[in-house]
Amino acid sequence: MRQPFCFVGILNGCPRGELTARRAPWYRNVGVLRSTQRGKGNSLLPAHVALNDKVRRCSLQARSTDVSSSTAMGGSAPSTMTENGTAVFRRLLDPQRELLNSTSVFLFDCDGVIWLGDKLIQGVPETLDYLRSLGKRCFFVTNNSTKSRAGYVKKFTSLGLKVSPEEIFSSSFAAAAYLESKNFKATGKKVYIIGEVGIEEELDLLKIPHIGGPADKDKQPRMGPGDKLEVDPDVGAVVVGFDRYFNYYKAQYANVCIREHGAEFIATNTDAVTHLTDAQEWAGNGTMVGAIRGCTQVEPTVVGKPSPLMIDYLANKFQIPKSEICVVGDRLDTDVLFGKRNGTRAVLCLSGVTTEERLFSQNEVIPDYFCDSISDFKPR
Amino acid sequence: MRQPFCFVGILNGCPRGELTARRAPWYRNVGVLRSTQRGKGNSLLPAHVALNDKVRRCSLQARSTDVSSSTAMGGSAPSTMTENGTAVFRRLLDPQRELLNSTSVFLFDCDGVIWLGDKLIQGVPETLDYLRSLGKRCFFVTNNSTKSRAGYVKKFTSLGLKVSPEEIFSSSFAAAAYLESKNFKATGKKVYIIGEVGIEEELDLLKIPHIGGPADKDKQPRMGPGDKLEVDPDVGAVVVGFDRYFNYYKAQYANVCIREHGAEFIATNTDAVTHLTDAQEWAGNGTMVGAIRGCTQVEPTVVGKPSPLMIDYLANKFQIPKSEICVVGDRLDTDVLFGKRNGTRAVLCLSGVTTEERLFSQNEVIPDYFCDSISDFKPR
Repeated sequence: MRQPFCFVGILNGCPRGELTARRAPWYRNVGVLRSTQRGKGNSLLPAHVALNDKVRRCSLQARSTDVSSSTAMGGSAPSTMTENGTAVFRRLLDPQRELLNSTSVFLFDCDGVIWLGDKLIQGVPETLDYLRSLGKRCFFVTNNSTKSRAGYVKKFTSLGLKVSPEEIFSSSFAAAAYLESKNFKATGKKVYIIGEVGIEEELDLLKIPHIGGPADKDKQPRMGPGDKLEVDPDVGAVVVGFDRYFNYYKAQYANVCIREHGAEFIATNTDAVTHLTDAQEWAGNGTMVGAIRGCTQVEPTVVGKPSPLMIDYLANKFQIPKSEICVVGDRLDTDVLFGKRNGTRAVLCLSGVTTEERLFSQNEVIPDYFCDSISDFKPR
Repeated sequence: MRQPFCFVGILNGCPRGELTARRAPWYRNVGVLRSTQRGKGNSLLPAHVALNDKVRRCSLQARSTDVSSSTAMGGSAPSTMTENGTAVFRRLLDPQRELLNSTSVFLFDCDGVIWLGDKLIQGVPETLDYLRSLGKRCFFVTNNSTKSRAGYVKKFTSLGLKVSPEEIFSSSFAAAAYLESKNFKATGKKVYIIGEVGIEEELDLLKIPHIGGPADKDKQPRMGPGDKLEVDPDVGAVVVGFDRYFNYYKAQYANVCIREHGAEFIATNTDAVTHLTDAQEWAGNGTMVGAIRGCTQVEPTVVGKPSPLMIDYLANKFQIPKSEICVVGDRLDTDVLFGKRNGTRAVLCLSGVTTEERLFSQNEVIPDYFCDSISDFKPR
């Protein structure tokens, strides 16, 4: 059972803190990490964070000399970085008061929050039912562009969850919505796709013409003397999503469209790794986007997390301030950053890739609250 | 005929300067570009340079109010950036005094300096003969890793030039030499190659074991539930060179080796574009390197231009100061930068991709001298 009060400690160093954490789990409701200058010989060990990468050092160590009561810091106030550079990580303890009273829209990351691979996370259906019973609107956001929203509905249904396509924000949809917001169709141009069927299906729904995608799977340009890759001069945008059939033909096609014809370079996301299977971390869309950035030297417009597109859309649709939106995710570098960068609240769930140790080992991305899973959103 | 004196003008703006330049070619021996703050509403138009990219604005405009005589600046001194932020571009006029007296080793870029595609540039054989008759050592450097040095000897021979493999520095050789300098063989590890036969041949010469390369051309990992891409745990380095058969299998193989097994990420070069054919600019090794950087979030060790490896090697081999080495190339962002960043002299030839207008339109990379072609190295 959790203790009703908070313990504040200086969290730093490794591995002594792991032992401490196991011995005294009741103090883990709040963690404080002093921001230290890196590599400058500070008396505290420097805090390390490797965004989008494995954290190589853990930092969790309570120092008895720096312990004080958290009540002095206002109890249920969200996690913060204080003026003296101290990061405060706060566990969600009173969901009604701390979160639900002030939130009307929840934006849930899927993998690591709703499901893990092909398995539903315990307590999710009841939590979603509870939130909806309070009149909260729930949306589901994923950077995976290989499926369309219709494709995701099937996945939700197979897990016993009732979700409509309108409640799903896949980055494939985000790419199509972005083009629609720019009135792309009116240009008479078409889209060249590096990516899979999800992007095609979403563009089809908006009747935006497209070429490339899975059809270019096995193509190879002719590269003999005098050869060139002829591209459709009507390509006005290149959308780059995860593509397990990425090849040199696609790279050169995108390169010519962007460099020579001024097509806009749009990335569904730039995630370094993705979870194609549970057995391994797989090279993500950062691979394909990095390739096109590498040859064109052009920075893409990113439409998935952590770009503001989806949050702007929801704030506008429901005419609410962004502070009434809460992003819920299991990753600091996409989910929490996505929320914090765009003016929403952000809750980190420890049900996915981020451990408590990893959370405390960095001070660059600070969620408003952290919790074990979204089951903690219900009253106990 | 060129005038024996120099004209100094403020070069900026577009397109009036193009007219001026055509009308008064005799003043083109020296160009001066004032360094201006970009985008800050300066009264001069900002100077623009897009390294590794097409320059979208040209900047060549003589302003009569800012004209002065170049003799005040010391005549044959190399091009410089002066203390007040003025870039001085100086044409090579007296090769013996300005260049040959102080240079013992020449490091020539190939494409755009020695040949253009499959055609020898006029005057090259005579110039190389002349330099060798003076006891100068000539080396030929290329970032193209698809051929080994043996492969390049064939190309030189086919153009009627006599060059030995030891005089050639391809980035495929640079990768092998780098591994040799680190005593990689002693680790008992092997190299995973993304790239073509040039890298394989160079590693073979040094008896460094390798896998991947062309053999992985058509491979695709299994990505069903529970699948993972098993990699050879003995891979200690991943060498990434230009690979027209790049695919997702290779990206994921490199990703796992680098992320999970700590293999070193080595790039032969990061050129955005390459000249596979004369008809088009093709996506270069920046594509493959960008892809692996994008999924691993690791920065590569770059062994080709503009890294210092080859220059260090030559300075050490001949026991000469780097100031006695001169890099000769047709690109600002690789060749000239390669020299200037590493303490050598650098001459830009206008016989390749860089025009005089492009040279003058930037102030970030300043060659010691510029000339039409290496024929200008001979006395007139």
